[in-house]
Amino acid sequence: MEKLKEKRKLKSQPKRQPKPLKNPPRRPPKRKNEVKKFRNIKQEIRILGVDDAPFTPHTNEQVMIVGTVFRAGYWLDGVITTKITVDGTDATDSIVEMVNKSRHQDQLGVIMLDGITFGGFNVVDIKKVFQETGVPVIVIMRRYPDLSRIKKALKNFHDWEERWKHILEAGEIYPTDKIHKQESIYMQTSGISKEDAQKIVILSTTRSAIPEPIRAAHIIAAGVITGESKGNA
Amino acid sequence: MEKLKEKRKLKSQPKRQPKPLKNPPRRPPKRKNEVKKFRNIKQEIRILGVDDAPFTPHTNEQVMIVGTVFRAGYWLDGVITTKITVDGTDATDSIVEMVNKSRHQDQLGVIMLDGITFGGFNVVDIKKVFQETGVPVIVIMRRYPDLSRIKKALKNFHDWEERWKHILEAGEIYPTDKIHKQESIYMQTSGISKEDAQKIVILSTTRSAIPEPIRAAHIIAAGVITGESKGNA
Repeated sequence: MEKLKEKRKLKSQPKRQPKPLKNPPRRPPKRKNEVKKFRNIKQEIRILGVDDAPFTPHTNEQVMIVGTVFRAGYWLDGVITTKITVDGTDATDSIVEMVNKSRHQDQLGVIMLDGITFGGFNVVDIKKVFQETGVPVIVIMRRYPDLSRIKKALKNFHDWEERWKHILEAGEIYPTDKIHKQESIYMQTSGISKEDAQKIVILSTTRSAIPEPIRAAHIIAAGVITGESKGNA
Repeated sequence: MEKLKEKRKLKSQPKRQPKPLKNPPRRPPKRKNEVKKFRNIKQEIRILGVDDAPFTPHTNEQVMIVGTVFRAGYWLDGVITTKITVDGTDATDSIVEMVNKSRHQDQLGVIMLDGITFGGFNVVDIKKVFQETGVPVIVIMRRYPDLSRIKKALKNFHDWEERWKHILEAGEIYPTDKIHKQESIYMQTSGISKEDAQKIVILSTTRSAIPEPIRAAHIIAAGVITGESKGNA
């Protein structure tokens, strides 16, 4: 039968007028070391939720990074992906590139990361992500991280001080208010105030204890790589 | 920082008690050539939306098939994937296997396919999918298919009659009622009455002109393979 795509493409073009996708001009950093102020947080704020796929630890394999573009906690508007190296140091640049070349970039209100490390100990420099994309970043953690354990693990890497610096520079780790009577989760942020970050986390936590963009990114990444997503994120 | 997964896994186990995932017993066909009757369609009926990823036509490549498990048109509960051959004849068996080995299988109320062909002209035998999974099937088409054009294209294959048979055996192609004042879309079904299929299509069409499970499967499949999903499905 006719596939839906053909018609869809025709239908969506007049509405969307996407800018050319190949080599879009890299937007200059909009904000440097300042905090984006949200006058009011729109109910339909677009959030990019980022998680990594399952991988084999302690290899130099590539691991898939999945970004879900959500309208707050409700609608999946797009999926973007990239790859990083397990235990490498390319997570920051790969995420920046993934965001900046996306047609969603201009519309993104915030980036949410499922933890500050991906693919093992590939630590994200969230200040750099904010500076180079112009989009504020919220790192989501379900519990308060065991920093001494992380530091010890990082010391296995010759460049551990650089990785550790990114974690420290991500700043204060603070709990959210309880959401829907669930336990608090924890955040680090860049380019956004604690209060605004908290509002956006609450707004996007519509289905479980964690924001929906991150829950979906986890489910998608796992399903695509293993054939089936396990658990309910 | 601590990744969410660790905690999640611990948290989700007591609640979910998933059956062992490796080699789950293949459930015997529950229904053969009969129509599943839905006494009432639950608002949270679980729907598997199936679409294929972008691929290069006329090759023997493998193409990814993505299945999204949705609660009606609202929540993504899981993602399952498999692969089929471009222009091959393995779509039916691959989809049956993907469904039957999924931990979601017992809970699925219906399977929705984005068209009856995947990966080019790999035609799905929807009667067989219903018989071998026990889950009714709804094929979704945005417009009435040009059957003579399809037949002509199929004639390029030595086994075209078998492929064509699957299309005919999928039965009547009927329009849905208008959904949210959008144009009608078209359906073929197996194992479900026209009335029930229509209700489920309406229930799950929450965001665009097509059911959400299919819209999401399309976005995910495109984003994972090309790095970015184009358009809005």
